[in-house]
Formats: sequence, structure tokens, C-alpha cells
Amino acid sequence: MNSTPPLAEADLRRASVCQLLHWLAVGRTRPQLLADAYLQAIERIDPQLNAYVDVRPALVQEQARTAERRRRDGVIGRLDGIPVALKDNFDVAGTPTRAGLPGRGRPAEDDAHVVARLRASGAVLLGKTNMDEGALGAATDNPHTGATHNPWRAGYSAGGSSGGAAAAVAAGLAAAAVGSDSLGSIRIPASYCGVYALKPTHGEISTRGMTPAARRLDTVGLLARGVDDLTVLLQVLAGYDADDARSRRRRVALSPPDWEPGHLRCGLLPDLAAVGVAPEVIEVFEAALAKLPRELGERRTVDFSDWNFAHTRRAGLLLMEAEMLGTFAEDLADREHPVSPRFRALLDYAARRSAADYARADRVLDAATLKMRRLFAQVDVLVLPTTPRAAFPLGGAEPDHHADLTSFASLAGCPAVSLPMGTLPNGLPVGLQLVGARGSDLRLLELAAVCAATLDAEPAYPAIA
Amino acid sequence: MNSTPPLAEADLRRASVCQLLHWLAVGRTRPQLLADAYLQAIERIDPQLNAYVDVRPALVQEQARTAERRRRDGVIGRLDGIPVALKDNFDVAGTPTRAGLPGRGRPAEDDAHVVARLRASGAVLLGKTNMDEGALGAATDNPHTGATHNPWRAGYSAGGSSGGAAAAVAAGLAAAAVGSDSLGSIRIPASYCGVYALKPTHGEISTRGMTPAARRLDTVGLLARGVDDLTVLLQVLAGYDADDARSRRRRVALSPPDWEPGHLRCGLLPDLAAVGVAPEVIEVFEAALAKLPRELGERRTVDFSDWNFAHTRRAGLLLMEAEMLGTFAEDLADREHPVSPRFRALLDYAARRSAADYARADRVLDAATLKMRRLFAQVDVLVLPTTPRAAFPLGGAEPDHHADLTSFASLAGCPAVSLPMGTLPNGLPVGLQLVGARGSDLRLLELAAVCAATLDAEPAYPAIA
Repeated sequence: MNSTPPLAEADLRRASVCQLLHWLAVGRTRPQLLADAYLQAIERIDPQLNAYVDVRPALVQEQARTAERRRRDGVIGRLDGIPVALKDNFDVAGTPTRAGLPGRGRPAEDDAHVVARLRASGAVLLGKTNMDEGALGAATDNPHTGATHNPWRAGYSAGGSSGGAAAAVAAGLAAAAVGSDSLGSIRIPASYCGVYALKPTHGEISTRGMTPAARRLDTVGLLARGVDDLTVLLQVLAGYDADDARSRRRRVALSPPDWEPGHLRCGLLPDLAAVGVAPEVIEVFEAALAKLPRELGERRTVDFSDWNFAHTRRAGLLLMEAEMLGTFAEDLADREHPVSPRFRALLDYAARRSAADYARADRVLDAATLKMRRLFAQVDVLVLPTTPRAAFPLGGAEPDHHADLTSFASLAGCPAVSLPMGTLPNGLPVGLQLVGARGSDLRLLELAAVCAATLDAEPAYPAIA
Repeated sequence: MNSTPPLAEADLRRASVCQLLHWLAVGRTRPQLLADAYLQAIERIDPQLNAYVDVRPALVQEQARTAERRRRDGVIGRLDGIPVALKDNFDVAGTPTRAGLPGRGRPAEDDAHVVARLRASGAVLLGKTNMDEGALGAATDNPHTGATHNPWRAGYSAGGSSGGAAAAVAAGLAAAAVGSDSLGSIRIPASYCGVYALKPTHGEISTRGMTPAARRLDTVGLLARGVDDLTVLLQVLAGYDADDARSRRRRVALSPPDWEPGHLRCGLLPDLAAVGVAPEVIEVFEAALAKLPRELGERRTVDFSDWNFAHTRRAGLLLMEAEMLGTFAEDLADREHPVSPRFRALLDYAARRSAADYARADRVLDAATLKMRRLFAQVDVLVLPTTPRAAFPLGGAEPDHHADLTSFASLAGCPAVSLPMGTLPNGLPVGLQLVGARGSDLRLLELAAVCAATLDAEPAYPAIA
């Protein structure tokens, strides 16, 4: 009796999670149809992108069948039937967690905390996505599993280290994805691939079962094609986990969305060129700001003259590399499956650093915490580009500064949202970043939704999708 | 018109802070009388103890005069007129913070957070107390400032690193003292000197203006002659400090005291001898437990078979030493005022450790956090001796295991109270330690008060006092 036209595969693969949940609720699609649409698209399109490293169609279909049963029984979770991708540094019981490394055939024993939460919410796990070797990089040009291509242009990087996850979401090969972000690994590929991302407050989503990079920086990051999807994912995944030492009981509920229009104080950097942002990115950024006169409220220039973005990013990187010497000790010793010379060289560098160097770097994180506390006493949100440039061609050297604008939120444990703000003259997208005080995740998402409604008025779609 | 006999100097110097506050309130003593009594006692007795390194009588008297004025005006703080000592690793504007090191003549510019809070509460700061060189040790046998003697027996250590502070309180040369505790530096001297101590939850009292040892372990510790005094001090000093990166907004108010008699679950180690506790300390400990049949409720043996006390204490020590290479860089380079060969050797050891070693040690703190969370799901409080032995003779080698029973609470960020539990056959005191979950500071203090009322029924006084 339904006279609306049937949904095409493209509809299902371009829709947001919230739209899909609506269509599932009203019966315009079903979990198995959704899973099949995504599986077929992965089979057809992923050879051009290389977003996935492990897809097991039989397991996906089995999950979709179970979701159909739950829906028939009328007992469904918040993400029931939604096809979600997972970066390959989260444990899924029964499959190996390769983390972009060449060995690691041993299957994980337990689901990571977020995997268990996703399953409990009814999400259908599509597979594991490509990433930088050991999550150490921002190119997803992996010497063992190959490069992930940017859906907007083959031959260009998807960013990293959650590049496979971002490319899959951008190209409609997953409705949403869960990755990790220690210095920008969710936000950088979101910026390059034109999708929405949340790096939550540190400790807000448990990292248990995620391969550690640097415990004081590690967060579970979220990727989707809409801001509201990030909010739903956060609500499903966030909360205290007694078995994660870095998980913290919330002091209060996440700050509720209560921006007062006209009362928002929005912080801007005085000179983006001085911190390495390319002129064409500044142009897109300023055009985006010009479209958001009311949304961003009162603009205040904030002082970062005491802050060296590159220096502080390197401090975070040392914490990662030093911890990875422990995390990846077996991989480094595995002569049958050698890690790449680049990866070994990065960790060899860290191996020559002293305990005092580590302590000194760790103190930079305390300085970042204080810097951000003072900043967020003056403004409600800091607004800046997510990355200083758009995606770069694969095969060349990875630019070393593309985490400069994302890392300081990581050092301070603050939440950050990235949303598409427009495309450069060369057609590649670039992201707008909103950074807030710890615990302001929901506020940032509400502000991002308001901004996205204006910026995304005429959405474009990537070439490979 | 007051017919009660006048208070003798000994009364004023043996009384608790709460008793002194009462006598001040009813006019049985005055801030200037109190200050004079303590100053005279310091002049007379401290040459035998060497508890203080810096006392400026004129400044003390000036504070006491101001306190008299406030009292006449009827506007007083919570500790108004109470003579308090301060370990020499807290900044007091205008005087150098020597931290037990030989150079450091430059006066501090600002008061430490706790010093400002003490001043605001009306406390009279008596002076700065002796400590281990750089706070790295537990003997207070300082090569530059001399050893502090134990008030119970000359020639014996007062413990450390807050040994001067504990000896001053025990000998009646201060009504209370503020020190620091990163692995046991408040609790060990409290145990050896027979006084009460609180190491609060990490982050509960701001450490701003305290010379850092290891930021993840550093806490401000409190020493007094009564449990209730610790509660008053905690309430004066605790709370969020936006300028201390490690200070945290309280999730909730400190857990209120709500032990239900008969419902308390008290955790005990299965075998104290196996963790290095001397037979005579075990005897005193068991006698104390036997006196507290109702107070400690249901007793449960907790499993520490997965825990190596010495190994984890060394992990904490590495964090301290590695950070001290930065904190004390100028002192190490000062050829005119050389640090001791022992101090240099300890930091040289750390200088040879790698960033990966630091990260590995830091992970032990995460393991301790999880261990304690699981433990405090089973019991409300862990009860054990504060130190494996009583005070040791000065001049010999410092035993290296006397922080084994205190350090794990530090690694996990948990609060701990030490209270005198009795004396060994040789007449030296030893402490009972109560450890609780993070945030349970007030509960621990209430339980300690109940236990102390039983254990301390016939207080003895030290030989040198």
C-alpha cells in the first residue's frame, strides 16, 4: 500500500544514520537490504579505494538476519540494523587486530568496549578499515595493506590514520565508522574526505580493547555523514568503564546543548598563515565564517603567541612513539613479518630518547591543559580549519605538519568536531574544526549541526562512491 | 573572672588543632601566646631535633599580632591563630624554596596555593621544615641541612621525605604541618614519629607552587596530632584550582562520612610477612586489630598475589627521578653548590633510562588504578601497617623497602590515612594505614577517628618534646 518510490542503492548509501533509522522505523528499508546494499557497494567500489582490509560477508549477513528478527520482535537497539565500519585497531573477538602491521594473525579474545556497545545497540559491523602502520601517520599509505585512495580523487590520500574509515563513510561504503584519534587521526581524514567527525573529551568513551598509542591522548573517534549521527553514536558509546584506567566517571552529565544565540563567544586565531595554513584553505575558511554571521556569535581573536603548534605536536608524538615501543614490541621483533623501515626508524628515534625527554614532553600536556582552561574562560568555542591543507597526492612524502591544528585539542583532552566547510578550487574538501572545553561534546555537536545546516546547503558527492 | 588554671606551655604544645581552636574561641589562650610558646619551644628543643631549616621569629610574631587584631575585630578564619609548619618544598613569597638542595637562594615570587589558603584561613606559619635532598628519600638525613632526629629517640630517623614536618608535630614544635607525599613521604614519617597523616586523593589539593616530584603521584600531605585536625586542614586546603593542570573539578562533593557500623567491609592482606613486614610490627598490628572488633566491621582477605610491591614502588620512583632531571636541572648544573653524590647517582640512573622505560613505568600506574578499583568494589577500606618497620638508626644505609606499603595508594591516586597504632617493644611507634577509593577522604578520616579513639586511649609523649 506504500506508494512512495523504492529507495535506490544510492539513496541508502548517501543517507545519514538518522535518515536510515527513520527509513528502518517506517519500513522503507530493512536491515538485510541495507547490509546487502553496502556489501555490494564494497565489492564493486572498494577495489578502487582500498578502504577495507577485512570484510566477511557471511558474518555481516548473519548480523543483518539477527537484526531483522529483533525488528520483527519489536525489541531493537538505538543503532539497530545500521551498517558500521571499524578501524582495524579495535579488537573484535575471533578476528585478528592487525593495526596496520604485517604480523598479528592471532585472533582477539574479546570484543573491545566500543564493539560490545555497538553490538548491544544492534549495529551491523561491516568490517575493518585500513589505517597507517601502527596508527603512526596521517596518510593511510600502508606498506603492507596498500594506500587508501581519497574518494574525491584517486591517487590522493584519504588522510589518516583512520583513512580507511573516513573513505568508507565518504564513499557510502559504511553509514558511519568508529576509529581512533590521538593527535588528529579521525579529524584529518574527515577533513580530507569531506565527512563529519567527533574526537570526544579524553576518557569519555572507553578505549579498552583499542590498540594503545599514547594513553593520555588516545580517544575513540567517530565518523559519519551527518552531525546528528555523531550525537547518536556518542550516546551509544560514551560512559564510564571501570576496566579502563583512563575512563573517568563523569563529573556531571555531558554539558547539555545550551548555546544562547547571540551570546556565543567564538575564538579565532589571529593569523592562520603564520601557523602554516595554505592561502586557499584560508579563503574557504573565511568564506565559511562569512556564511555563519549569527551562528558563531561574537568573534574574539585569541592569543596563541605563547604556543608553538609544531613543537607541541612533536611532544605528543614522542609519547606515542615511546609507548609504541612497548605496545608493538612483538611486532618489532618479528623477523618473518618485518615492519617497514619508516616505522622502525620512527620508533628507533623514540628508543634513543630518554625518560627525562618523555617527562618533558608529558609536561607539555599539562601546559596544554592550562592553556585551554584559560582559553575557554574567554570563549565558548575555538574555530579553525581542521587541517592546514587539503588531501595531498599519494606517493610523495607525507607532510609533517598536517596534525598541527588537531593535536593541541588532543594534548589538552578537549573535544573537537570537524565538519566539511567547502571545497578548494581543485575540488578537494577541507574541514572546519570546532574545539571546546572538556565535557562540552554535546554543545559542540549542537553548534556543528547549526553550522552544517548552512554550509552543507547543496551537498556534493565524491567521484568514487 | 576565669577560675580555670592557666594553660602551661606543655598543654598548648600537646593539644590538637581542634583543642587549640576551642581554647582560642573561649579566650583561654591567644594567638600571640600560642606563637610565643611554639617559638620558644623551637628555640629550646629544635637544636636536638633539627626539624626546622628556616624560622623567622619576627615574621611569626607579626602574623600572630595580625591574628590578634582579627580576633578582636571578630572576623576570623577557620585556622585563625594556629601555628603551622611547612615543608621546604612549598613556595612562600619572599623566601627561598630550598627543597633540601644546597643552592637555591632566590626567593619565591608567589605563595604556593596551599600557603595562600593557609594565610587566608588565618594560620600562623612558623617556618620551613627539613626534608630529604630534593624529596628523594625517606630518611630526612640531609647532607646539606643535617639529619632530623626522631623525637622518640635521638639518633633515629624521623622518616621522610617530610621528616622535619612530622618531627615538629610530634615534638610539639608545630600544631600541624603541611608536607608532600608522592610515594609515602607524609605517611612514612607519620608512622615513625607517631602522628596522624592524610595523603588525599590525587588532585584534591592543588600542588601549584610545590616543587614537583612526579606530577601523576604528587599530593599535598597533612600532619597533625589528631584525626579531626586533618579533616579541618583538608576542608581549608582542598578544591579545584584552575591553574593546576592536575587539579580536578570534583565529580561530586567528597563522599560524606556514612560508614554503617557493622556493614563496613575491611580488606586485609593475606600475609604481611611475605610483603616484608617485620614480626614485631605484625604483632602490634594484630593487637590493634584485636582492639577494633566492631570498628573495622567484616574482615575480608584481599588478593594481592598479582602485585609486586617493590616492583611497583620502583616504577613510581622512576617517574619521580625522570621528572626531577628537569625540575632540578639548574641544581644539578650548579658547581658552586654541588648536590650530594647519592642524589646525583640516583638521577644519573634515571638519565640512563629510556622514554620507553618511562612509558612502561607509567603503565604500572594504570594497572594500579584498575587494581584499586577492583579492590574497592569488594571492600570499603584496606587496612595494613603504614611501614614494614619502625624508625631505623641514622647513619646506616636507608632501607629501600619502607615505601612499599605506602606507594601503591600513590600509584592509584587513592587517599590514605596513617594513625599511630602502638609502640614496638623498643618504644618506637608505628602507624596503621587506611586506604580507600578515590574521593573517600572524608570517610577514611571518620573511620580513623573512630579507631583512634580506641587505640589512643592512653597517649604517650615522645622523649624529645
